[in-house]
Amino acid sequence: MNKDIKVIGFDADDTLWINEPFFIEAEDIFCNLLLAFDTPGQIKAELLKNELENLDNYGYGIKGFMLSMVETAMAVTDNRVEPSVLSSIIEIGKNMIKKPVDILDGVENVLQSLQNKYRLILATKGDLVDQERKLNKSGLIKYFHHIEILSHKKASNYEGLLKHLDIKPKNFLMVGNSLKSDIIPVANLGAHAIHVPFHTTWALEQVESHEHEHLNYHSVKHINEILDYLL
Amino acid sequence: MNKDIKVIGFDADDTLWINEPFFIEAEDIFCNLLLAFDTPGQIKAELLKNELENLDNYGYGIKGFMLSMVETAMAVTDNRVEPSVLSSIIEIGKNMIKKPVDILDGVENVLQSLQNKYRLILATKGDLVDQERKLNKSGLIKYFHHIEILSHKKASNYEGLLKHLDIKPKNFLMVGNSLKSDIIPVANLGAHAIHVPFHTTWALEQVESHEHEHLNYHSVKHINEILDYLL
Repeated sequence: MNKDIKVIGFDADDTLWINEPFFIEAEDIFCNLLLAFDTPGQIKAELLKNELENLDNYGYGIKGFMLSMVETAMAVTDNRVEPSVLSSIIEIGKNMIKKPVDILDGVENVLQSLQNKYRLILATKGDLVDQERKLNKSGLIKYFHHIEILSHKKASNYEGLLKHLDIKPKNFLMVGNSLKSDIIPVANLGAHAIHVPFHTTWALEQVESHEHEHLNYHSVKHINEILDYLL
Repeated sequence: MNKDIKVIGFDADDTLWINEPFFIEAEDIFCNLLLAFDTPGQIKAELLKNELENLDNYGYGIKGFMLSMVETAMAVTDNRVEPSVLSSIIEIGKNMIKKPVDILDGVENVLQSLQNKYRLILATKGDLVDQERKLNKSGLIKYFHHIEILSHKKASNYEGLLKHLDIKPKNFLMVGNSLKSDIIPVANLGAHAIHVPFHTTWALEQVESHEHEHLNYHSVKHINEILDYLL
């Protein structure tokens, strides 16, 4: 692709391993706890509203999701939350934390093929504790130089990352499933980006096509295809 | 002190700014919510037990503390938590998040004096969102090259940090208030460490003297004194 590329950042959730389906599953279990009070659609709308409002306070990850479920249960029940609902929310969260890591098809082959030619880093806005746990469970930790946790994935966060890595935009390639977080801010900085879509995208990660159609990045159907650009 | 030192890592909470007193204050408010059910001593013991049990799942920071308060309230009330208690727990946490940052005396002068001679990094095991927020609020962000979030502060985490920074132990100095987290693991690696005690230490950070009395590190009473070693 380009001889200038020195560091490749991989997004973690839904790029290396399955994540969003676990949140969707957890949301469904959570909705079922509160069906006496509202419709699934309304409960999910309230949850999303709380997640969005809490984003600056809590950031991304399972703990913030648990706290947003607690607040949603209080709102939906008009503060009449059954203790059993509260126990179930804690259990939903702890079960998410305990989930095995489902590595996506082709990922290990890609990392193995690139590890000696580039410096590979994990660049995620998830929670450090969650992501380190998944990286350890996955067995993929050996391929990565280190983990970079970004509080958000906006252009300014990537600028901070490049400064921290002491490299220029042309030396960096980002690979990920989210146009909003992994591709648009990176392409806007003049760094390289390859989009590897996942079949489902969180509401807060969705973007309009006018936000990216003019940008310079590659898009592949399967992560294996990034090797065509990089080897 | 030593011409080999290139990077200085500063712990954040209770080294740069006040933190533990806010947790102690929050614990007291939390205890007062549950006095009908148990003594403050028993409630605090249950909270500490939950925090310790949840450490692997939740890591450090305010969100995990909030979830541990929820679980403690459930345990102490035998699952008869009043909705108002739940609202108060959420409020306690959000108020902690909103607290202004109280920079400790002398910190800014020290950072200013060292910034052109060394690469300064913030090395903390707090939550990234919490620490970035505090760093922004404090106005100290301009002195730091970047933030390093460690999931734990054990020797292996510092080894990862040195690898990531591409430096040897002799090139690194850690400054912090916790013997357990900032000094012992760093001195054990053969890197430099200066202990700046804070007047109060979280129960989970306390250590026995045999764990550090044989180690090679400096101890100062006030952060200003580290300049004597470094300028």
